[in-house]
Amino acid sequence: MKWPDKVTVKEVGPRDGLQNEKVSIATEDKIEWINQLSEAGYDYIEISSFVHPKWIPQLKDAREVAEGITRKEGITYAALVPNMKGLEVALETNVDEVSVFMSASESHNKNNINKTIEETYPVLEEVVKEAKANNKPVRGYVSTVFGCPYEGAIPPSQVLEVSNRLFDMGIDELSLGDTIGVADPKQVDDTLHYLKDKLDFSKVAMHFHNTKGMALANVLVSLQHDISLFDGSLGGLGGCPYAKGASGNLATDDLVHMLDSMGIQTGIHQEKLLEAAGYIQAKLGKNLPSHHMQVNHRT
Amino acid sequence: MKWPDKVTVKEVGPRDGLQNEKVSIATEDKIEWINQLSEAGYDYIEISSFVHPKWIPQLKDAREVAEGITRKEGITYAALVPNMKGLEVALETNVDEVSVFMSASESHNKNNINKTIEETYPVLEEVVKEAKANNKPVRGYVSTVFGCPYEGAIPPSQVLEVSNRLFDMGIDELSLGDTIGVADPKQVDDTLHYLKDKLDFSKVAMHFHNTKGMALANVLVSLQHDISLFDGSLGGLGGCPYAKGASGNLATDDLVHMLDSMGIQTGIHQEKLLEAAGYIQAKLGKNLPSHHMQVNHRT
Repeated sequence: MKWPDKVTVKEVGPRDGLQNEKVSIATEDKIEWINQLSEAGYDYIEISSFVHPKWIPQLKDAREVAEGITRKEGITYAALVPNMKGLEVALETNVDEVSVFMSASESHNKNNINKTIEETYPVLEEVVKEAKANNKPVRGYVSTVFGCPYEGAIPPSQVLEVSNRLFDMGIDELSLGDTIGVADPKQVDDTLHYLKDKLDFSKVAMHFHNTKGMALANVLVSLQHDISLFDGSLGGLGGCPYAKGASGNLATDDLVHMLDSMGIQTGIHQEKLLEAAGYIQAKLGKNLPSHHMQVNHRT
Repeated sequence: MKWPDKVTVKEVGPRDGLQNEKVSIATEDKIEWINQLSEAGYDYIEISSFVHPKWIPQLKDAREVAEGITRKEGITYAALVPNMKGLEVALETNVDEVSVFMSASESHNKNNINKTIEETYPVLEEVVKEAKANNKPVRGYVSTVFGCPYEGAIPPSQVLEVSNRLFDMGIDELSLGDTIGVADPKQVDDTLHYLKDKLDFSKVAMHFHNTKGMALANVLVSLQHDISLFDGSLGGLGGCPYAKGASGNLATDDLVHMLDSMGIQTGIHQEKLLEAAGYIQAKLGKNLPSHHMQVNHRT
C-alpha cells in the first residue's frame, strides 16, 4: 500500500465542532482556545461562522472572535459565510479565507437552508465572486456526499455536478463531507475512483465523521487515492446529533496520531493538541469522545 | 482496492471481553448470552477460559458455562486453556476446540505467565499434542504482536519465530493480537507484507484492539493482504485497561457493520448482534464502548 510523506490537517473544531455543542462557550475562552490551536502547528483553522445568531447562537460572536485572536504568521484563519451579509462582516474582520457550503442532497439542502440546489448556486456565486474580488481564497463545503438522512445514498454523479459548479464559480478548494457518518471504505473507494479523473484532487479535502467508527479507515482509503487534505475537529468536538456521547466529527487528535504513527508528516504537535483539547473539554464540562481524550482523561 | 467476498468473524467476547470486566456476571446470564450469540450467525464463539480462578475469577464457571449452553450445529464452541490442567477439564466438557496463548514479547510473556518464551513452548506443546490426540482443533493466540507495554515495538521476525513454533506444534489457526491497541495501518501493512510468504494466511486471524481508534483501518489493511479471519468482542466488551470508558477490543458490531456496508459477507445478523449486546450491557450495568452501542443506546 502507498502513503504520502505529508498530509495537511485542517482544524474545523471552533466552527463545525462548537456549532453542535449546547454548552455556550464564552468569547474569551474561544479566543484563548484558538490561540492555543495556533501554537499546535496547524496551517489552517476555521474559527467561526458569520451566520445569523438565530440559526447558531453559539457562534454569534464570530466578529469578536475574529478580531480577538492573536494571528500567527503562516496560519490561514478562515470563517464560514452563508451569504453576502455574512461575507460583509467577515471582510470587515479581515479573516484570511472564507468558506461556503451546500449539500449534495436536494432534500438535505432544502431542509438546511430552505433552498433547492439550483436556488443555492446564485447565492454562493455572488459570495465567491465578491470574496475573490477582495483577494480572499474560498473553500467550498459539500455536505451529505456519502449519504443523506432523508434520501439515503447520493450518486457520485450528483456530487460531481455540485463540485463542478462550485469550482466553476471559482472556489480554491473543495471539502467533501460525510455529514452523517455513514461512508464505508468501499463507498469512499468507489466514489474517489469515480471522481479521480474529473476533479483536481490536489484541491479536494475529505471531511469524515466517525459516527460508526469508520472515519480513520475512510482516511486510509482516501490516502490510496492521493487525497492529502483532511478536516478534523479536535477531541471529536461536535458530537453526534443522534446519540449523546457518540462520536460525530473525526477527532483531529486521533487523525494526527494515526498519521504520525505511520510516519506521515502533518506538522502538528500531538502533545499541544491534547493540551488544547483538554482546555475546551474543561470549558464544556464533559468528556470529549475522541479515543485519545478517552484514553488520557484530560480535564 | 480489493476486498474479499466473504470474511469470518470470530466472537471472543465471552472470554476475552468478560475476563477484563470487573462486574461479575452470573453463570446463567453468561449461558443465556452465549445462546443469544448462537442465534446471531457466528461460526465460532470462544465461550470461556479454563484458567485457575485465582487468575481470572470472572471465568471460574467455565465448566458450568460449557455444559450449560445450548450447542447449535455448525458453530464451533471454543475455550482457552493455559495448561494441561485446563485442557483436562475442557476435554471433560467436550468443547469443540481449544486455544492456547503466549506473547511475542519476552517481558510481556514473563509478566503474564511468569515464564520465558522458551519455557512456554514445552507447556503449550504438551497441550497441543494432547488436544490433537483428542481430535480437538487448536487455535494459537500470539499477543503483543504490534507492541508491548514493556518493550515497545516487536520485530516481525520475532512474531514469525513464535508463530512458526506454534504451527510446528500442530496448531490449526493462529490469531495475531494487538493486545494494547497500538498498531497503526502502516505497521500492519509492513508486518503482513513480511509474514505473507512465510505463513499460510488462510490460517491466520487478526485480533485488533481499538484503543486509539485504528482497529477498523487495520482491518482494512489486513483485507488487502488476503486476511479473512478476524476476532471481535461484542459491544467492545473488555474495555481498555488504561482508561475507564475507552475502547479495548475491536467491537464485533462495528466490525460486522463495516464489512456488511462494504458488501462483504459475514453471515452475522446485525440486529441480533445488537440485541445480544444490549443483553450483556444491561447485565454489566454500563454503556458498552462500541460505536453502534453508543449510537443506539441499547440498554
